Amino acid sequence: MVLTLVIGNKNYSSWSLRAGLFLQESGLAFEEVRLPLFTEQWFQTIGQYTPAGRVPVLLDGDLAIWDSTAIMGHLQERHPEAVGWPSDSRARAYTRSIAAEMHSGFLALREELPQNIRARHNRDRRDFSSSAQKDIERIETIWQTGYQQYGGPWLGGEFSVADVMYAPVAMRFVTYGIQLAPAAQQFVSAIQALPSIQQWAKDSEAESEVLSFIDNLNAAGTGDDAAAV
Amino acid sequence: MVLTLVIGNKNYSSWSLRAGLFLQESGLAFEEVRLPLFTEQWFQTIGQYTPAGRVPVLLDGDLAIWDSTAIMGHLQERHPEAVGWPSDSRARAYTRSIAAEMHSGFLALREELPQNIRARHNRDRRDFSSSAQKDIERIETIWQTGYQQYGGPWLGGEFSVADVMYAPVAMRFVTYGIQLAPAAQQFVSAIQALPSIQQWAKDSEAESEVLSFIDNLNAAGTGDDAAAV
Repeated sequence: MVLTLVIGNKNYSSWSLRAGLFLQESGLAFEEVRLPLFTEQWFQTIGQYTPAGRVPVLLDGDLAIWDSTAIMGHLQERHPEAVGWPSDSRARAYTRSIAAEMHSGFLALREELPQNIRARHNRDRRDFSSSAQKDIERIETIWQTGYQQYGGPWLGGEFSVADVMYAPVAMRFVTYGIQLAPAAQQFVSAIQALPSIQQWAKDSEAESEVLSFIDNLNAAGTGDDAAAV
Repeated sequence: MVLTLVIGNKNYSSWSLRAGLFLQESGLAFEEVRLPLFTEQWFQTIGQYTPAGRVPVLLDGDLAIWDSTAIMGHLQERHPEAVGWPSDSRARAYTRSIAAEMHSGFLALREELPQNIRARHNRDRRDFSSSAQKDIERIETIWQTGYQQYGGPWLGGEFSVADVMYAPVAMRFVTYGIQLAPAAQQFVSAIQALPSIQQWAKDSEAESEVLSFIDNLNAAGTGDDAAAV
């Protein structure tokens, strides 16, 4: 049975990245349907795949599953080789908790530091709202704690769903030039070293669509490149 | 092994309600620790249970698991009798998708119609922002589709995680007096008929703490009770 993943722009859609990374790191073959966000193609087509009107969507035979966590849960149930949770019970509880924390939270970070993989800015975390700063601090702590308690190379020791969930956040910190404590920077480097992420970044650069409300938002900070956009 | 669930106010904390309902409908015995939100007790104690600073938190032996979906995933893995997903593959894909959609979305609804179980207002959905109206419409469609496709008595036929996830939304619609299409109202009635929900509502009425920013928000609409608060 062929799996098909419907995604948005690789450059801008962080939930698409999570689902794509999960499939690739699980070693599952899939076909990709890319619907660039907010284009005529998007508005005419997305409703054929999902009533929620959002990406990603997984098509598995006659089933459609939307939302990244639902996609991961569905695939874990059907494919024992899919990315799961660490076997150590403490690491398992920790990664499960922080993965869910990402899925339901960090709203200020998601709004103020939207995914824009091919862009590079030089921001200080104090350029952002106090809510976004709190999000950045909490994520930094989550990553540091993971490395300190489970010894790496991933947040729970073994590669798990938590690493998939935080991968786009690592890429955001690269985009905006956010300086991190060393143990947190270790996670960013580990994510950047994944071949599947390097390919995703290359594909992002090759995309021609520009969402100006995201690229202009990047320019709204007080950092040194505000005048350059 | 005794399970302990750390929750906030039963009246105001919708994620606490989800975790509590899940445990009760799973038939799992647990002890409850209630930390009223934003009280001195809350600020002094919550950090002992979770670094995320949020409820609910499940304590299972020496493990702490936070966020409702992580708690449910953890319990499903350890207790085969826990609430899960329908056995029919289409209903399973559907409930998994809509449960995840609730966990990550409906931000306008969550902000403008916060949980306030013991309050009663008489609002029209047009009193709310267009984003909140869209959330209400989408949820109404989700519930209708569930009943039409899987025949009831729950959103995916059998009682599942999706019903747990949307239970606090049903209670919000009761609080704010939102009129719904009949198939969607059927879900609200089914939730209200659960003894575990009736007990939760009684406990909410017995709570003495008042979060005025929530009760005053209720009064900010254009409905007929705006002057009464």
